[in-house]
Amino acid sequence: MGSEANPNSGGDVPTIVTRVPKHWQRLVTLPSEFAAKVQEMILQLKKVGKDDPRRVIHSLKVALAITIVSAFYYLNPLYDGFGSSGIWAVFTVVFVSEFSVGATLGKGVNRGIATLSGSALGLGCYYMVCLISRGDHTTVEPVLLGVITFLSSAGATYLRFLPQLKVRYDYGLLIFILTFSFVSLSSYRESNIQEIVKKRIITILTGCLISVSVCIFVCPIWAGGDLHNLVSKNIEKLGNFIEGFGKEYFTTSEVGESNIKSYMQGYKSVLDSKQVEQNLANLAKWEPCHGRFRFHHPWQQYLKIGNLTRQCAFRIDALNGFLNSTMAPLEIRSKIQDPCMKMSTELGMALKELAVSIQKMIPPCAAEPHIAISKIAAAKLRSMIQTGLWEGTNLFEVVPVVTMASLLLDVVSCTERLAESIQELSSLAKFKHKESKIAAENSENPHDQEEAPQSASCDNRGPHHVIAINQPCTNLSHDGKSQLLRS
Amino acid sequence: MGSEANPNSGGDVPTIVTRVPKHWQRLVTLPSEFAAKVQEMILQLKKVGKDDPRRVIHSLKVALAITIVSAFYYLNPLYDGFGSSGIWAVFTVVFVSEFSVGATLGKGVNRGIATLSGSALGLGCYYMVCLISRGDHTTVEPVLLGVITFLSSAGATYLRFLPQLKVRYDYGLLIFILTFSFVSLSSYRESNIQEIVKKRIITILTGCLISVSVCIFVCPIWAGGDLHNLVSKNIEKLGNFIEGFGKEYFTTSEVGESNIKSYMQGYKSVLDSKQVEQNLANLAKWEPCHGRFRFHHPWQQYLKIGNLTRQCAFRIDALNGFLNSTMAPLEIRSKIQDPCMKMSTELGMALKELAVSIQKMIPPCAAEPHIAISKIAAAKLRSMIQTGLWEGTNLFEVVPVVTMASLLLDVVSCTERLAESIQELSSLAKFKHKESKIAAENSENPHDQEEAPQSASCDNRGPHHVIAINQPCTNLSHDGKSQLLRS
Repeated sequence: MGSEANPNSGGDVPTIVTRVPKHWQRLVTLPSEFAAKVQEMILQLKKVGKDDPRRVIHSLKVALAITIVSAFYYLNPLYDGFGSSGIWAVFTVVFVSEFSVGATLGKGVNRGIATLSGSALGLGCYYMVCLISRGDHTTVEPVLLGVITFLSSAGATYLRFLPQLKVRYDYGLLIFILTFSFVSLSSYRESNIQEIVKKRIITILTGCLISVSVCIFVCPIWAGGDLHNLVSKNIEKLGNFIEGFGKEYFTTSEVGESNIKSYMQGYKSVLDSKQVEQNLANLAKWEPCHGRFRFHHPWQQYLKIGNLTRQCAFRIDALNGFLNSTMAPLEIRSKIQDPCMKMSTELGMALKELAVSIQKMIPPCAAEPHIAISKIAAAKLRSMIQTGLWEGTNLFEVVPVVTMASLLLDVVSCTERLAESIQELSSLAKFKHKESKIAAENSENPHDQEEAPQSASCDNRGPHHVIAINQPCTNLSHDGKSQLLRS
Repeated sequence: MGSEANPNSGGDVPTIVTRVPKHWQRLVTLPSEFAAKVQEMILQLKKVGKDDPRRVIHSLKVALAITIVSAFYYLNPLYDGFGSSGIWAVFTVVFVSEFSVGATLGKGVNRGIATLSGSALGLGCYYMVCLISRGDHTTVEPVLLGVITFLSSAGATYLRFLPQLKVRYDYGLLIFILTFSFVSLSSYRESNIQEIVKKRIITILTGCLISVSVCIFVCPIWAGGDLHNLVSKNIEKLGNFIEGFGKEYFTTSEVGESNIKSYMQGYKSVLDSKQVEQNLANLAKWEPCHGRFRFHHPWQQYLKIGNLTRQCAFRIDALNGFLNSTMAPLEIRSKIQDPCMKMSTELGMALKELAVSIQKMIPPCAAEPHIAISKIAAAKLRSMIQTGLWEGTNLFEVVPVVTMASLLLDVVSCTERLAESIQELSSLAKFKHKESKIAAENSENPHDQEEAPQSASCDNRGPHHVIAINQPCTNLSHDGKSQLLRS
């Protein structure tokens, strides 16, 4: 059959096939195309679940919440009480149930408050209109109600553009317009408006309660935890690259020979992680204390760390470019090999230690000695270049090597600022040393725990401190620009 | 009064004030604080409207659509027909009315199709359950309906994670869950389920129709037009910077003396415009033909151009760093002043011409001679550097100048690729030369217009072509990496 479809194969058969119009030929292939599409879809569905198994759990949680809220219809006492108003509860569950606890809580609180305020204002307006219209139900009342609805919808829609409301209260303003319109329109037609509003408020609050409860109590997915892990993981990825960079750069003799490990390329996802981090931080602010995180955990500080991580990643991306392009001759590179290799290894270890310190929520002390050693190497490299290391060599061959060195020096200062920022997080979030954690766990008296130093710094850790003081000041710039190239 | 509140002022009065508890003192300042907040809010509301007056128009449009759809309650024939089901139309208008036509159409189509399919499937399931349960209304029917609702909600929620559905059909899947749950739950309690479903479909489709009509026919805001203007404006901003860069770099003798014009800094907004462009392109795909844009206008090509613009902007940001930091001595810089100034001026003009070509939808021919001249200057600069221009000078002073030159060369190749990409857009979107546009407008016969060359290229434009051929091949790299530094 396969050869028949091919007009280029010999014999008479192709002639027969070409007589069939094109769209008929296409009809023959349709079922197989459809089967291929379905197969592809199934593979993708599997991949989506494999990438993050919590997606399957979330789907089941939403279905569970809808099933629970269906009680408004299936249970006679509830249906007798609320009738078809029960559908508001179902709609609430469908709209409010989101992937993370933060998103669900944010939407739930928005919907709850907007329903309450919209109903109250709607009823207030109705009573006011009744007073003014003095029973003129046919002209004055609808005109007044229409004008009020017009003005309030226009106002609330305009408020949605305000930057400080847009991020956290956009959904609330939408639901406010909805509820206000519902109450003002219903009040014109229904005699028992209070009863309708009461049913709506109860069903919507119940819906919010059900979806928030299912979201929190059944395998909760915390946006805060995701942000915490993401920021830590991103720093680790940078560490993986920079640790391997020195070896790759100084042992590869020709372009294409460099055998860059795939784990080194993980940093690329860091380059555009800004939006994800921003979203997670916005959602995390809604979340109550959970696990190791307090209610007012300093999520904003994670964004600062994320920004510094990205600044570092941009430099690492530039360094990566040097691995992928024609390289300067080995003899030129090898002149600065020692300090660069040292910096590369130590920076890698420092970044990984910083990642661990965030992950385990301990002060970033273990990274300090590595940063100190890399700063010593940086000072050595700087003085080596200044002594005219490459006198008489081709400028074109030297420039890329110096640029690489300058980027590496930038990474040192980036890492230092990153460490400072993580130290700040450590103070804000009151990270504790392992030992004090164990001590606190061993101590049965909760008062003892509170008397213990709430925020541990690295100052009291002898050996690290000595290294930090003894190393010469390398005077690295803190403005994020390549000091070497521009001074 | 003011001096009384100040505890540092002399006399007995402060002693009296300090006796008042702190929170009472705060109560005194509350009204003024509140007034300040209100004033700030009003200023911000004014700013939001001033930044984009279409926001005011949008708010009024939403209010208008809600007022129109209120007819379901205010007009007797409509209320007699639909009763309180009319509220679905109101809710539809509130949810579907978005800022741009693309967003409104996208949501409207999603909501319409999801309501139809959800209703059909819901009814189908109900009839099936009726067949299976054989009238057992108390146990078999609710259990079966519950299981089906559970499975369908879980399935649809899971489908929302699929990348190809997430961007365009996320809202539709949500409404599908909503409608399916509504129909299956109502079918258990209501005897006239077909009637209910019919009313729901009619009101929701009417709501969609009203909001889409208001959005399109009252001062429409097109996402496609916004994307078109944004991409063109971004290129113009790069042109503004690069045109002024040469003068700033070669005339400033000390850091801090450079007097960078504010219009030159406009490029900074280009650096993170990716998300905005992506969103606008997704919405633009929903929009019908309008103004100068066809239904299948190549919006995807705008994203490609946007990416190239950003690549160019990253290099420009690095160049900007050289204006803000300590500069190499003037005598070192001045050695490459001539070709660099030429490149800077010509690139600026080329970029501005490219922006105009997008804005006016004409082929980017006017930019070609400028690109050609900048390529000649680039070749000259390259050969100058290779001849050992700075023999015997301090390497540290030369490296930043060479790096700057290399970035400028990168901008040349970026601009060339940008021009190619805009030429591609010109072919895809069938841009026409001004003359052929005027000719087409003058011609009364629509057939003539269609017979005219649909897509104009720059090949037939004598003088430009000559320049392009006569200039030597500068062999600029197209991989986006700095060829000079890494070869």
